[in-house]
Amino acid sequence: MQHFSDKLIQAIRKKKSAVCVGLDPRISQIPDFICKKSVREWKKSFQAAGSAIFEFNKGIIDAVADLVPVVKPQIAFYELFGAEGISAFIQTIDYAKKNGLLVIADVKRNDIGSTAEAYAQAFLGESDVFEKKLRAFDADAVTVTPYLGYDGIKPFLESCRQHGKGIFVLVKTSNPSSGDLQDIVSRAGISNYETMAHLLESWGADDVGKEGYSSVGAVVGATYPRESAKLRKIMPRTIFLVPGYGAQGACADDVKVCFDKNGLGAIVNSSRDIIFAYKKSKQYGEKQYGEAAREAVMEMNRELGVS
Amino acid sequence: MQHFSDKLIQAIRKKKSAVCVGLDPRISQIPDFICKKSVREWKKSFQAAGSAIFEFNKGIIDAVADLVPVVKPQIAFYELFGAEGISAFIQTIDYAKKNGLLVIADVKRNDIGSTAEAYAQAFLGESDVFEKKLRAFDADAVTVTPYLGYDGIKPFLESCRQHGKGIFVLVKTSNPSSGDLQDIVSRAGISNYETMAHLLESWGADDVGKEGYSSVGAVVGATYPRESAKLRKIMPRTIFLVPGYGAQGACADDVKVCFDKNGLGAIVNSSRDIIFAYKKSKQYGEKQYGEAAREAVMEMNRELGVS
Repeated sequence: MQHFSDKLIQAIRKKKSAVCVGLDPRISQIPDFICKKSVREWKKSFQAAGSAIFEFNKGIIDAVADLVPVVKPQIAFYELFGAEGISAFIQTIDYAKKNGLLVIADVKRNDIGSTAEAYAQAFLGESDVFEKKLRAFDADAVTVTPYLGYDGIKPFLESCRQHGKGIFVLVKTSNPSSGDLQDIVSRAGISNYETMAHLLESWGADDVGKEGYSSVGAVVGATYPRESAKLRKIMPRTIFLVPGYGAQGACADDVKVCFDKNGLGAIVNSSRDIIFAYKKSKQYGEKQYGEAAREAVMEMNRELGVS
Repeated sequence: MQHFSDKLIQAIRKKKSAVCVGLDPRISQIPDFICKKSVREWKKSFQAAGSAIFEFNKGIIDAVADLVPVVKPQIAFYELFGAEGISAFIQTIDYAKKNGLLVIADVKRNDIGSTAEAYAQAFLGESDVFEKKLRAFDADAVTVTPYLGYDGIKPFLESCRQHGKGIFVLVKTSNPSSGDLQDIVSRAGISNYETMAHLLESWGADDVGKEGYSSVGAVVGATYPRESAKLRKIMPRTIFLVPGYGAQGACADDVKVCFDKNGLGAIVNSSRDIIFAYKKSKQYGEKQYGEAAREAVMEMNRELGVS
């Protein structure tokens, strides 16, 4: 069984891309022709919303699958539509994997040990269904929040080892108020985000793949390049998942510091600027939303310059 | 529209109970007769698991609805079974509300502002389904993690105001390693959990109900009574949701400090010790799992002594 970090690094090399496409299908921005078809079939229902989302995602995945290593559906935009939204989330994961993409389920889960174990089984492992083993979500990796400390993380580490999966733990997030808690400096003179970084690097130390990276990645916002540079030094074996590019304000220069000396060790996420590129395009109409997304990805690949 | 904290305080007074029943339906502990019926109908599938969970929860809710103000389903144990598990989660919320209970969806969600907004709409507000407004989960309150600071909380506050809902933000959790991040002391000499408490109290300041409590509650673990006592002083207007009672090791003496001078301001959660009480009972067999749960609740009500 291949290590998650090896799969990811090899996919980055093969596709010559460090771009992660965020599948955040805000329904108000999905092309009209898709929405109308869904509403015709299912009226204005959660079923219609789920069906429109999956239809839209398929078009994006078809358009970008050969260009990027990984996609990241953000579950909030699916939970908006209850169980039908969750079905669309699961269908999206399956479809992306069938098309040769790795999938990070952006769910930011965490809880005390025994509950975190259930999350880990649901998203990365197997569920016990009356002694039959079934996979509920079966993503390649998930995002995890760290507020509860090590015993909320441990069950995820076990799933990583057992099933060749990965996690990305929030360290320094891209939002304006990320400093409220993350930037507080301790008596020992280091900030909470740095403390988290040291913990993460130790949590992943026992599970390092052939390429030299652990199964425990870090979420490090592109909007704070100074902090990112510090974090890159603290976590040499950690793959960074970098949000905040494009719509949130960061550019290629801001994310350079997230890569290591080999030009690897980071994936940079963009959501709105890719999947809804057709909205700003003069060349492509709504029926060509896939082509518009493809062009946006090619542009971002050029900007990041992974080779 | 009634304020969430007023609804909760009034329910506590009416039922003379500060007990929150945790609906964490670990499928391996659900009575055999329920599991067998589900498997007969649906084979060993997620559908069977979801159906067994909802059937089990109905029995618990029927047995305790007149004795407690609130229940708290923990979504991890439902996500184990994909979309079918989520259906059982939604059915459980609806059934509990129809039976006069308040429902805290224990989902510990959080993200950057625009994503947190989608979570808030999904769990507390309304989803926009092609310009029609539908409610996806419609809980009375949710649990929220605070790692991203204020702009991950703000959208939830808006949903609270708009829809008479509440949130419970993690402050000091009940698990052994909660101190990894929460207990770090800043240069200013206060711990992260105290900092969070000060922030919470200010976040809720603009939305206080008639009973004097805000819509922003705090999760404060029963397993750390010294810390809880400090937190009670920092957050006079904040309702505490207190996990860690029973199976996790805390007793009635440990949680006394979570209540305020009026004997109010806290709800104490117990999950396994109530819903699976039949497992330890000599008096009740598995078909009487509801009666066993009812007796466990009455015992806990006596221990906590709210009147």
